[in-house]
Amino acid sequence: MPSNRLAAQIAFIHEIDKLKYIRRKTRLFNSDRNENDAEHSWHLAVMAIVLAEHADEDIDLLKVLKMVLIHDIVEIDAGDTFLFDTVKGHDNTEEELEAAKRIFGVLPEDQAEELIKIWQEFEARNSPEAKFARTLDRFEPVLQNISNKGGTWAEFDISYPKVMEKVKVIKNGSARIWDYSEARIRESVDQGILREQ
Amino acid sequence: MPSNRLAAQIAFIHEIDKLKYIRRKTRLFNSDRNENDAEHSWHLAVMAIVLAEHADEDIDLLKVLKMVLIHDIVEIDAGDTFLFDTVKGHDNTEEELEAAKRIFGVLPEDQAEELIKIWQEFEARNSPEAKFARTLDRFEPVLQNISNKGGTWAEFDISYPKVMEKVKVIKNGSARIWDYSEARIRESVDQGILREQ
Repeated sequence: MPSNRLAAQIAFIHEIDKLKYIRRKTRLFNSDRNENDAEHSWHLAVMAIVLAEHADEDIDLLKVLKMVLIHDIVEIDAGDTFLFDTVKGHDNTEEELEAAKRIFGVLPEDQAEELIKIWQEFEARNSPEAKFARTLDRFEPVLQNISNKGGTWAEFDISYPKVMEKVKVIKNGSARIWDYSEARIRESVDQGILREQ
Repeated sequence: MPSNRLAAQIAFIHEIDKLKYIRRKTRLFNSDRNENDAEHSWHLAVMAIVLAEHADEDIDLLKVLKMVLIHDIVEIDAGDTFLFDTVKGHDNTEEELEAAKRIFGVLPEDQAEELIKIWQEFEARNSPEAKFARTLDRFEPVLQNISNKGGTWAEFDISYPKVMEKVKVIKNGSARIWDYSEARIRESVDQGILREQ
């Protein structure tokens, strides 16, 4: 029934407002203010639009947009995990799957299924769209940290090899964005805003 | 040249970070914290995905997403104008056009042209995508105000007829979302969170 569908969709629209309260470790560009997940998701979406031409494989831009817009919604229940957290793994936790089922489950069943599937595709990192979405998800904090004189790299005393290990997934979606990232990260060491070892 | 394109795109990605500082009058759901334009744009994009089936006309969802993701970027220069501002018109100002040219103009020329065109289409309110994007843009604050016991309607002492005059554009994109909005706004009067006259 249409009216029930709309009611469920509106309940979901209410529920996801909470993403605006989930604070990331990363700060805004040239800023000491933490970014929240809604702002981050918006930024990735616009990045997808303007950087799509640099994807290595053919991508369905609409799917990439859906992916980046919803990829962090599970953090409403599961919380943000810092990329360099050494205790808790960053992805694919049981907690996140439960969160996906609960939150997307507020929607009508067909829509819940579609969005859970897209979120799982993002997590699985295999499709051209997932690889490119992951590229963007790692590339934004690189740009932010560089603009913040080292940002979270400096704040949490992360070394160059550790940064490279975590951001190398950028390469899976775009050789060009990877070349750019690699050069800028190396420069950060030379500039003394990222420690060599 | 590809490398120049990427440099211009990254400059644009930096520039639009400022949208996260543009505060709207409207508050988050069940909250007294103002929403910013980046959060608002993200929320409209997810709403577009889950509410697309209620558009009265066939819409190109990818175009709607581009539209809502970039529709407020001009406010980086021109600032947010409150919907119920009686002095300054809400839209189509010369100031906003100058802002569009400057900010989208940071991008490579073909991309600047595409996004200025999409923004102008949104402002012109004629295409199915623009009408539906406008529906979402007006519908989000209705939901927020209702969840905030009147929200900006109460805060700025706006009457029922004035609210109806401003939100009736919801009808142009979706009869179903309009029916829902109309009923909920009428209920708000009955509940005493929106004054009758």
